Amino acid sequence: MEELQRRLLEMGGLVEAAIHGSVQALAQRDGEAARQVLESEERINRMEMENDSLTIGLLSRAGTDAGGLRLLVAAIKINHDLERMGDLAANIARRALTLMEEPPVKPLIDIPRMAQLAERMVGQSLDAFVQRDAALARAVLADDDEVDGLRDSIYQELARFMQEEPGTVPRALNLLFVARNLERIADHATNIAEDVLFLVEGIDVRHTG
Amino acid sequence: MEELQRRLLEMGGLVEAAIHGSVQALAQRDGEAARQVLESEERINRMEMENDSLTIGLLSRAGTDAGGLRLLVAAIKINHDLERMGDLAANIARRALTLMEEPPVKPLIDIPRMAQLAERMVGQSLDAFVQRDAALARAVLADDDEVDGLRDSIYQELARFMQEEPGTVPRALNLLFVARNLERIADHATNIAEDVLFLVEGIDVRHTG
Repeated sequence: MEELQRRLLEMGGLVEAAIHGSVQALAQRDGEAARQVLESEERINRMEMENDSLTIGLLSRAGTDAGGLRLLVAAIKINHDLERMGDLAANIARRALTLMEEPPVKPLIDIPRMAQLAERMVGQSLDAFVQRDAALARAVLADDDEVDGLRDSIYQELARFMQEEPGTVPRALNLLFVARNLERIADHATNIAEDVLFLVEGIDVRHTG
Repeated sequence: MEELQRRLLEMGGLVEAAIHGSVQALAQRDGEAARQVLESEERINRMEMENDSLTIGLLSRAGTDAGGLRLLVAAIKINHDLERMGDLAANIARRALTLMEEPPVKPLIDIPRMAQLAERMVGQSLDAFVQRDAALARAVLADDDEVDGLRDSIYQELARFMQEEPGTVPRALNLLFVARNLERIADHATNIAEDVLFLVEGIDVRHTG
């Protein structure tokens, strides 16, 4: 079980680096960073499959109590959430490679800020899981509201650009999808935080029972 | 285990109806259909939580073999995929309610076609799960390629609309996000089909071993 948690943390580290790299690729027009994200996606995918096997092995051990089972069920979900995040970071890297071939629409400010928040949410949600820290999980939920706010302002700004300069439509759409991908990454971190709250509240309920 | 499969099928039926209702709301400007989708989202959310409890109960039974455990792990993932689909259908319903307040951008043809495919994929992926039918699971993967093709043509068409008539940008963006939501619903059905292939191939591998 400790090995599984260690591996989920390691996978989370790869995901954070992939988010960082994908937005660096976008903001700095850094093709090498984009290619590294695409490579790490494959490694994240392999880890997901290995973690599933490990979890099935742990589930097949006799004598796991209800708390242990809830933990393993949470691990299955978290593993899948992390794989999805790696996939979304790879999508951003691919859009960065497309956008590099054309002049920039505008300086990027809100998107890097959104990426920074998403990275932090991934790290904190996994720390909350490993430490069963409900307060930290709630901090992740609060960050998600900020991410949604940034998404709304990016959305408004890009819609205005598209209306004022229709020639920017294809590039602005790519940026809009980057913002959506970051929003979804944040949603997956939120899923993890919710799993943690369920885990911890489950434990509390049994204690009061 | 049979009860769990029955419940997943029932949840799948609700999801199919929600996809259908959300696109009916959009195409027919039917507010009542949209509201029904939003109600059924809550029911789907409740079912997800109940199914998780049921699965944890089944996992805690002694003597489940490796095949049974793989099945339960697949059930946890499928349960989550179905909940996400219900959420995405609710997003479409909300966008339909927004779009109803303004004149239509264009007659909808590809979006209803995409919805039809997505509905079929949900039904077939669950049938493939219950019947352990790898061929049916592969049919779902093939449908997903068609969905991606439709998404690309919707994307091109709406980008052209936005460039030619900038006044359509906000409405066209809403339609674009509907197409993305349908694409993601299809992706979740694809996840289920992939889980089925893993299940069936896992069984095959053990048979040859």
